[in-house]
Amino acid sequence: MARFFKNRGANRGLAPGSLVFIGQQKTDTLRVRVIDYDGAKLEEGELQEIRQGGAYKKTQTVTWINVDGLHDLEAIREVGTTFGLHPLVLEDILNTGQRPKVEEFDDYLFICLKMIHFDEASQRVVAEQLSMVLGETFLLTFQERPGDVFEPVRERIRKQKGRIRASGIDYLGYALLDTIVDNYIYVIERLGEQIEDMEAAVLGDPTPSVMENINSMKREMAYFRKSIRPAREAIVKLAKMDNGLIKTDTVPFLKDLEDLVTQATEAIDTYRDMLSDHLNMYNSAVSNRMNDIMKVLTIFAAIFIPLTFIAGIYGTNFEYLPELHYKYSYFVFWGVMIAVAGIMLAYFKRKNWL
Amino acid sequence: MARFFKNRGANRGLAPGSLVFIGQQKTDTLRVRVIDYDGAKLEEGELQEIRQGGAYKKTQTVTWINVDGLHDLEAIREVGTTFGLHPLVLEDILNTGQRPKVEEFDDYLFICLKMIHFDEASQRVVAEQLSMVLGETFLLTFQERPGDVFEPVRERIRKQKGRIRASGIDYLGYALLDTIVDNYIYVIERLGEQIEDMEAAVLGDPTPSVMENINSMKREMAYFRKSIRPAREAIVKLAKMDNGLIKTDTVPFLKDLEDLVTQATEAIDTYRDMLSDHLNMYNSAVSNRMNDIMKVLTIFAAIFIPLTFIAGIYGTNFEYLPELHYKYSYFVFWGVMIAVAGIMLAYFKRKNWL
Amino acid sequence: MARFFKNRGANRGLAPGSLVFIGQQKTDTLRVRVIDYDGAKLEEGELQEIRQGGAYKKTQTVTWINVDGLHDLEAIREVGTTFGLHPLVLEDILNTGQRPKVEEFDDYLFICLKMIHFDEASQRVVAEQLSMVLGETFLLTFQERPGDVFEPVRERIRKQKGRIRASGIDYLGYALLDTIVDNYIYVIERLGEQIEDMEAAVLGDPTPSVMENINSMKREMAYFRKSIRPAREAIVKLAKMDNGLIKTDTVPFLKDLEDLVTQATEAIDTYRDMLSDHLNMYNSAVSNRMNDIMKVLTIFAAIFIPLTFIAGIYGTNFEYLPELHYKYSYFVFWGVMIAVAGIMLAYFKRKNWL
Amino acid sequence: MARFFKNRGANRGLAPGSLVFIGQQKTDTLRVRVIDYDGAKLEEGELQEIRQGGAYKKTQTVTWINVDGLHDLEAIREVGTTFGLHPLVLEDILNTGQRPKVEEFDDYLFICLKMIHFDEASQRVVAEQLSMVLGETFLLTFQERPGDVFEPVRERIRKQKGRIRASGIDYLGYALLDTIVDNYIYVIERLGEQIEDMEAAVLGDPTPSVMENINSMKREMAYFRKSIRPAREAIVKLAKMDNGLIKTDTVPFLKDLEDLVTQATEAIDTYRDMLSDHLNMYNSAVSNRMNDIMKVLTIFAAIFIPLTFIAGIYGTNFEYLPELHYKYSYFVFWGVMIAVAGIMLAYFKRKNWL
Amino acid sequence: MARFFKNRGANRGLAPGSLVFIGQQKTDTLRVRVIDYDGAKLEEGELQEIRQGGAYKKTQTVTWINVDGLHDLEAIREVGTTFGLHPLVLEDILNTGQRPKVEEFDDYLFICLKMIHFDEASQRVVAEQLSMVLGETFLLTFQERPGDVFEPVRERIRKQKGRIRASGIDYLGYALLDTIVDNYIYVIERLGEQIEDMEAAVLGDPTPSVMENINSMKREMAYFRKSIRPAREAIVKLAKMDNGLIKTDTVPFLKDLEDLVTQATEAIDTYRDMLSDHLNMYNSAVSNRMNDIMKVLTIFAAIFIPLTFIAGIYGTNFEYLPELHYKYSYFVFWGVMIAVAGIMLAYFKRKNWL
Repeated sequence: MARFFKNRGANRGLAPGSLVFIGQQKTDTLRVRVIDYDGAKLEEGELQEIRQGGAYKKTQTVTWINVDGLHDLEAIREVGTTFGLHPLVLEDILNTGQRPKVEEFDDYLFICLKMIHFDEASQRVVAEQLSMVLGETFLLTFQERPGDVFEPVRERIRKQKGRIRASGIDYLGYALLDTIVDNYIYVIERLGEQIEDMEAAVLGDPTPSVMENINSMKREMAYFRKSIRPAREAIVKLAKMDNGLIKTDTVPFLKDLEDLVTQATEAIDTYRDMLSDHLNMYNSAVSNRMNDIMKVLTIFAAIFIPLTFIAGIYGTNFEYLPELHYKYSYFVFWGVMIAVAGIMLAYFKRKNWL
Repeated sequence: MARFFKNRGANRGLAPGSLVFIGQQKTDTLRVRVIDYDGAKLEEGELQEIRQGGAYKKTQTVTWINVDGLHDLEAIREVGTTFGLHPLVLEDILNTGQRPKVEEFDDYLFICLKMIHFDEASQRVVAEQLSMVLGETFLLTFQERPGDVFEPVRERIRKQKGRIRASGIDYLGYALLDTIVDNYIYVIERLGEQIEDMEAAVLGDPTPSVMENINSMKREMAYFRKSIRPAREAIVKLAKMDNGLIKTDTVPFLKDLEDLVTQATEAIDTYRDMLSDHLNMYNSAVSNRMNDIMKVLTIFAAIFIPLTFIAGIYGTNFEYLPELHYKYSYFVFWGVMIAVAGIMLAYFKRKNWL
Repeated sequence: MARFFKNRGANRGLAPGSLVFIGQQKTDTLRVRVIDYDGAKLEEGELQEIRQGGAYKKTQTVTWINVDGLHDLEAIREVGTTFGLHPLVLEDILNTGQRPKVEEFDDYLFICLKMIHFDEASQRVVAEQLSMVLGETFLLTFQERPGDVFEPVRERIRKQKGRIRASGIDYLGYALLDTIVDNYIYVIERLGEQIEDMEAAVLGDPTPSVMENINSMKREMAYFRKSIRPAREAIVKLAKMDNGLIKTDTVPFLKDLEDLVTQATEAIDTYRDMLSDHLNMYNSAVSNRMNDIMKVLTIFAAIFIPLTFIAGIYGTNFEYLPELHYKYSYFVFWGVMIAVAGIMLAYFKRKNWL
Repeated sequence: MARFFKNRGANRGLAPGSLVFIGQQKTDTLRVRVIDYDGAKLEEGELQEIRQGGAYKKTQTVTWINVDGLHDLEAIREVGTTFGLHPLVLEDILNTGQRPKVEEFDDYLFICLKMIHFDEASQRVVAEQLSMVLGETFLLTFQERPGDVFEPVRERIRKQKGRIRASGIDYLGYALLDTIVDNYIYVIERLGEQIEDMEAAVLGDPTPSVMENINSMKREMAYFRKSIRPAREAIVKLAKMDNGLIKTDTVPFLKDLEDLVTQATEAIDTYRDMLSDHLNMYNSAVSNRMNDIMKVLTIFAAIFIPLTFIAGIYGTNFEYLPELHYKYSYFVFWGVMIAVAGIMLAYFKRKNWL
Repeated sequence: MARFFKNRGANRGLAPGSLVFIGQQKTDTLRVRVIDYDGAKLEEGELQEIRQGGAYKKTQTVTWINVDGLHDLEAIREVGTTFGLHPLVLEDILNTGQRPKVEEFDDYLFICLKMIHFDEASQRVVAEQLSMVLGETFLLTFQERPGDVFEPVRERIRKQKGRIRASGIDYLGYALLDTIVDNYIYVIERLGEQIEDMEAAVLGDPTPSVMENINSMKREMAYFRKSIRPAREAIVKLAKMDNGLIKTDTVPFLKDLEDLVTQATEAIDTYRDMLSDHLNMYNSAVSNRMNDIMKVLTIFAAIFIPLTFIAGIYGTNFEYLPELHYKYSYFVFWGVMIAVAGIMLAYFKRKNWL
């Protein structure tokens, strides 16, 4: 199945805004967690019915509702009606092949990104979709499967660490994005180490498997880049956004995030260049190897073929062949052969082939 | 015949706005279907004469007139006079080599795109031209041949599914464009799967036919890209358009379409890069193969040529050749040869050639 | 002589605006044709003296004066004084190495383009300079040699075909540009067919002459591109120009021209990519061929060199060589050789070399 | 460990603004030097406690506080509270993997760059982070380890050389940046010489170590570029900045700096291209070498294999083989062999292989 | 020594604006020539002391002061004080590694360009720095060594040719720039001819020296481009400049210059592409050559190795070897060998190797 491009093509003919889950179902149960807090109080729980979330919409506290699992179309539709979301937003939440983006609606922002991790077993970069709806009094997040990636943020909320409890919805949104981007950086660092280490293998022993490794890393980098470049665009757009939802205090944090993600995309480009250089080195090394092989062949052939020829002459059965009958012929014959071999070796020496 | 570029070059010297059909005639009959609806009522039928369509122009209902077949110049001219189109628009409708674009006129928009499908038999991407004229009360579409690509939209109109019956001309236009873009995505997904699967073949058995496949896929991607990139430009332009013909409600839908088509063009670029990587891998694999071949040759030559030479020495007929007459000469001779072969093998072993 | 870049470098040290003809003289005689028309009347003739043209400057009719041949500096200077042109314009008209451009002066536009045709004999793209001065009541055109490229436009004027007689100077200018661009498209179509056909040759029989063809086509495309890309810039500039010389009615026509020339430049880029792909395929095919050659060599060498060695052993003249004296030695010897050859063949079979 | 990309990925889950030192600790002690001057007076010393620096904040003299060593988080935090810095600024100061940038805050600028030097021993470009906080009355600089790179600036301050004592904080900031950029230029000049000298080695003796040198230089250039390109962006931004901190008099100096760093980045790009050309030349040279080797092999094989074959014929033991018994057979045999060798040599001569 | 990048890196630690001559001293004496003219009168002479030039500063005539030789720091400093130049301008004048640029000061423009010529002896492009200060009543030019490149302009001034005597300082400045750009064009034409001629050598006889020529031409083009691209930027900036120093009448001339230099940079890019194509052709030709060599080897080996083997069989000394004793064995033996050779030849013929 296509890994690099999966979108709603399979659902041709449906009306826009039709709710269809596109992707692989990664969890069986739908889990809706809610955290509601302000500087003073904190409430944490799980919702049985999504429409219960509607109550939080009106309060001025910061409400974060996290939905794990996207397979339950009915639930997603209910989110839509409860929080007044545009049908296209719901469609995008369900489409795990959605391109990362930020969209501005009248009273909320829709943010869609990829969470990245590197799967050691398959040596593949794995992307999972994260959608976020940032309203004035609530933040909705949608993940493909239950994950603990946001646990540190929850922890910070619970322990009143940092400025999170003192800030609003926009800072919470930033904190989550920051967690995702930190993860990008962690994965790039991991891959980067592998890539930088590859150079030794290329120079040391250029076997075909080295080439396969380089190429598979190249493919993973391309896959990563596909997720992170539009993420950068989205974050740049967010940092420039000028509406009531993003407060002035949060802007420096978003700009910092922009720097980070810019640096991450640059690092990916640098590593891609490095992989190309590795490939070039690999190909040069293969050529050099071929040269070595050919040199050995040529040296052997050029020394022994003439000698064999000389031996062949004195293996002929001509009746009248004077050299055969001289007493020291055989020794002269050896002398000649050693001389020929010596000349050849000197020639190859001078050509720098030895 | 040139497949990648076909335009009105063959008609040099004609006045601009002259009506000439450029392309291959793909249907014999001209068929004009009309659907006329608003929220309440729906009328569907076929027109015998194009000028009958003029009646719909004045009504406030949504009228969609679809023309299949472009060979009948007279009919196209009649469309022009009935709906008051610019001669250049008519010329563009008839030129199937037209570059996708959106053009704004005083009281209508002209949109020209390619419908894409992948022909399994010839393994080629096939593009068919779709022209669209979006007026205040009517939508005209022109296809090269009768096709059922818009059937799902008709179905939605008939069944009052989605928001289509409740919306205006601009939403209908969007719905048709959406159908076309969904098709792009479907085709890219199909091609993408093939491209991603190619990697195994490249690494497994790099025969020349693998290279031909990669190159033919590259060519198809180039052909596809030629259609889809200007389509993207056109849709971006449409989503930004600020006139009475596109209503504010429809803009988010067009922006969504823009996202989709952007993602599609990015996917094409990713796949093009991947095909280049495949080619590089193919070439590396061919070099590796050459190395293997040369190694076998060199090993055989470097072992047996010296041995043959030694045998040649004792095949000479020198009268005085002492070694020939010793009793164990022959066995010593074998010993020497085995030793030489052993040394060579050890050497190749150390060089990692075995 | 440099074909790709020829400019006024050879005239270093001359004052700017000095009139020097740069290029090859392509005609002996200077010919000045004039057509003067409006919707009602038409007058056509030839001028003996250029200053006669001055009379047309004041009339409100559309006057088109076409000058064939640029070698007569005196005549060009006279045009300058008669129609009040800037010395730099005259210098540009005479410099056939001028880069295509549009320049706006107070009461006229100066347009400079290349007319392209493909010379079958030399298989080369040939560019000829066309300069155009578009004033309020007159249009001057300058060609390097008499040509019939504008004959169809004259025909349309004479026959009152299309809107040309009803329109002004700007439409006439457009009609001429349109003729030139149609020619670009025709030439690209011709070259494109050749390029698309090359693929079969590359895959079929990759001889060095195929590579030379690809490279010479690449060079021609580069030459073409050098003319057409600045022409595109010029036409884009023209379509955006906002002054009294270009009327609103003509703008859609210029935009149409812009589309055409954009499509032409894109086609050139596509074909350049295709030629690069052809070259890559050629190189891969050459490598594959090398592999085939090496396989044949290796198979022969690896089978017969050991066999020759075995024969060599029994060609030695050792006095005590037991095998020589057994009755069936010779047949065993054959058996061994056939076995060795069989093993080798099986090995190559398994390696997929046969 | 990844050298090309090191950021705060390892600290996933921490709150933004948390102070963590990212990098290698390069010094044991923290050293805080202060220079305070105006046109008239100069005071130089070392601070025991960072909070003593607060006193300088209010005076109108130019105060430059330089901190060597970043490992002491407490000290950095104290700087923050003393001078009122944003937590993100402190985080960036401590993150030695930070991307060069300029950030504008309400009453100070934060500038972050890399100091570059080329380590002869490891043949590597080494980057050290320099952070700078430019307030209205103070300039803070933070280095990873004590270095004398700014000593010349101190010297100029002490000796009242140039305009430094007569100018303000902004000029001091510029003077430090100028020192850093001068260092970039010095390093590029050094590397450039090495790169330009490599050409001779490539053409002379293309051993694999030459290729490794080219590739390692390429990698160093990539590493350098990673630091200098964002530095350029930062300086461009600084030169355009329009606030009270940068005075009009200093702007031409910053523009001059911008020119220098632009030229430096262009030089890096030029050298990168040159290294690519070197690699291409290397690969061509390797191919040529292979051709030479193959020519030698082919010449030897093609001359001696037929000769050996002829000798082989007369080494057969056929009972009835007439040539063996003629008196001059042996000499004719030699004649034939010399003729064959001569023909082959002439053939290779004509093919230009000798 | 680095040729591609030479800047003030060696002077690290000096205060900005310190006067240091960077480059090679190319003349021993300092020569200061002055031309002072208006439409009516002309005065030409040489200055002994630079401060005498100050007198011309106040007159309304056009004064052109040309300084040959940059080694005399004192003289340059005097120019600075006499004409009131910024210290950074003086520093740039003395730095022959300065990047071409235009800078606007309050009452003068500073322009810095490279004069290019092609040194036939070393086959290298040589760049010399030209600095220009364009004030309201004076024009200062600084050259590295006395040259006659501006002699034609002086001639035009003396002979009242063209518009130069009737125009102001800005036109004089333009005239000098025009001379420099004409020189660029002349050099590109010269190099272009060489590059276009190279193709024949590549296709005819691809020796390593051909590759070295291509690469050295590539390097020269890179060197040229390094000078001309920023020169283009500078001229574009100049043509757009909107201050009292550049008069409206001169703008079309500057635009014309812009066209020329644009065309020159495009020509350089075209030639760079062409050189890359040449290299590709060279590499393909080398591969083809290798194929030819291998074909010869393989044909010889594949024909003669089996034949030698057959001869070897009948050279064995088996006691019981029936064929040896038949009367026509030897002739049958020949027949078999001719048949084997014929079959091989037919096989190679079919493979298109002959």
